[in-house]
Amino acid sequence: LDKVWAALAGLGKKLAKIATDDPRRVVHSFKVGLALTLVSMLYYVRPIFNNWGLSTLWAVLITVAVIMDYTVGGTLIKGLNRATATLVAGLIAVGAHKVANLGGSKGEPIIILAIFVFLLATAATFTRFIPAVKAWYDYSVTIFILTFSMVAVSSYRVEELIRLAYQRSFTIFVGVATCLFTTMFVCPVWAGEDLHNLAAENLDKLAEFLEGLESECFGENAPGEDLESKPFLQVYKSVLDCKATEDSLANFAKWEPGHGNFYFRYPWGQYQNIGAVARQCASSMQTLASYIITLIKAQRPETNLELCSKVRTACGEMSLHSAKALRALSAAIQARTVPSPAMTHMTAAIRAAKGLKAELSQDEDLAKVMHVAGIASLLSEV
Amino acid sequence: LDKVWAALAGLGKKLAKIATDDPRRVVHSFKVGLALTLVSMLYYVRPIFNNWGLSTLWAVLITVAVIMDYTVGGTLIKGLNRATATLVAGLIAVGAHKVANLGGSKGEPIIILAIFVFLLATAATFTRFIPAVKAWYDYSVTIFILTFSMVAVSSYRVEELIRLAYQRSFTIFVGVATCLFTTMFVCPVWAGEDLHNLAAENLDKLAEFLEGLESECFGENAPGEDLESKPFLQVYKSVLDCKATEDSLANFAKWEPGHGNFYFRYPWGQYQNIGAVARQCASSMQTLASYIITLIKAQRPETNLELCSKVRTACGEMSLHSAKALRALSAAIQARTVPSPAMTHMTAAIRAAKGLKAELSQDEDLAKVMHVAGIASLLSEV
Repeated sequence: LDKVWAALAGLGKKLAKIATDDPRRVVHSFKVGLALTLVSMLYYVRPIFNNWGLSTLWAVLITVAVIMDYTVGGTLIKGLNRATATLVAGLIAVGAHKVANLGGSKGEPIIILAIFVFLLATAATFTRFIPAVKAWYDYSVTIFILTFSMVAVSSYRVEELIRLAYQRSFTIFVGVATCLFTTMFVCPVWAGEDLHNLAAENLDKLAEFLEGLESECFGENAPGEDLESKPFLQVYKSVLDCKATEDSLANFAKWEPGHGNFYFRYPWGQYQNIGAVARQCASSMQTLASYIITLIKAQRPETNLELCSKVRTACGEMSLHSAKALRALSAAIQARTVPSPAMTHMTAAIRAAKGLKAELSQDEDLAKVMHVAGIASLLSEV
Repeated sequence: LDKVWAALAGLGKKLAKIATDDPRRVVHSFKVGLALTLVSMLYYVRPIFNNWGLSTLWAVLITVAVIMDYTVGGTLIKGLNRATATLVAGLIAVGAHKVANLGGSKGEPIIILAIFVFLLATAATFTRFIPAVKAWYDYSVTIFILTFSMVAVSSYRVEELIRLAYQRSFTIFVGVATCLFTTMFVCPVWAGEDLHNLAAENLDKLAEFLEGLESECFGENAPGEDLESKPFLQVYKSVLDCKATEDSLANFAKWEPGHGNFYFRYPWGQYQNIGAVARQCASSMQTLASYIITLIKAQRPETNLELCSKVRTACGEMSLHSAKALRALSAAIQARTVPSPAMTHMTAAIRAAKGLKAELSQDEDLAKVMHVAGIASLLSEV
């Protein structure tokens, strides 16, 4: 029994950590509960739903359970996908019915419809192997296949089908409206805002790396022994991994209406550019980090101590100024102003770099070029 | 109009490439079409379905459209998830109904049920933020929320609910059985086999890197100028990225019945171990690659030409032998035998490494240790 309690305590701790890491997750959970409850209550309150029966309520519930997403943009896109896929599949299915009825006798239409279902399901499944479709429209394809085979197989007449289509679009509309209402008006989570913060955070992380480099490797005290375990050498990794998150957030953000300081059609693509520059910068940091680790492991006897300390000081200065420039850039993104102090730090860093013609400098120079490119892209945005 | 044709031609070429890269994809698409057509035909042929009406057919269609997966193991797991989630949610919902009915009067149960729906949907949504649940049980959570709210909201009496539950389990059973029939008996794609081939392929890729290293960097001809663009320096990247694929394949493979040369409960975990070793190896190759690129860019004037050529020859030998050892290991995995020639190559490589005490050697030594670990883990498996 003690083991069970320990496991439960561990689980509880894990859940608490997830909740405190981002309290909006808890809010999101409550929002899903709220949306479902709203729909359920609608069933009891409004006479429309009682007339249409239970299957209508189920259709609305399915829509809500499947569409609700963490961000406003995500919910919007999923809702649009569901509506479009249902509409297109329904139209094609009605067309298929008309073609099949041209056959005439009773057995023939069934065979023709079966062939239609077979061919369309095959084609739709195959499109899933296209990477872009898999990434953005996987759900739409499922809905398309489902709606098409349902409508094609059910032996309704065409007039009934139109009534059914009307009913289905109404249920989808109610479901999507409920979802949008709860995601947009109850503590909304905007994909655009998340994207904005992610860009600033990433630059901060890169700055942290350079600061760590300055204090640990080029600082007063000699380079530590187990440099590999230092946390600052790991921060750039999360920057490298966030491309997928960034792309989906940018995609969601494009569909969101204006909110807060962001207007509709805000240049979200610029954040993707900043992210790309940050990743390039992080990957040259990766090279730099592995180079430094190898160098320290090798413990080469220093032949020229004076030159060596000079190089070290210059490198330290360079990393310090670059880090300051990155911090300033990050602050500028947060405040959405033109980053003027960043330019000062940048010129200081470049001056330090120019004063140095040693081996190591070229690695740093690479990183530098990236920063300048970053500033340029940022300036073009603000 | 010309533009449209050009776009269509481009799309056709893309689709043809996807199909020729892995012809099993086309087969899979036809299998999905086949399964859906089978279910639809069942509706016309068997009188059971006509008695149960259209909603039963729809439930079966939904099951088939959602569950069909590329591999046998994937279909099995999704089917089990759907069945389990429906069952658990149904049971809890029946319990909730009984509790609500204790309330007595007509209005109260509705409010109690609404509270139940709200709380359970909130809790279930929150579990989605646990990474493990998100990765493996996301679909189950959706089904759970759906089934629970449907059953809880519908104002059936408990006896009717049990009849409904019976009907639902039957439709899920028919759907899963159809899916399993088509995935298992029509050109099956086994996750286990894919996992097996992936492990061998990855070792081959690592060998390719080492061979490229041998011929391009340490070979007769001097190191090329634009080393960075050489394809062999990129192959290890795909090895680094395949962890997610490997994990999901191993997870699917565990559920597959015995097939071909693989029995049930084959030690699939060993493949994950080999994969982990291969990734470790690939990441030390990454370090090595970035080191070499930096080194060649620096173009340091060689002070001791004789020593330098010696080092180069030794490194070349080491990479050659390591590459041979990896090729032998990969062949051994393919044939599922004890890798005897690999040991010979390995000792040759280690001998070459021992004969060398230069700077570069330690990088290579690291890679070596990985290979030996790889052999050890493989021997323990066969």
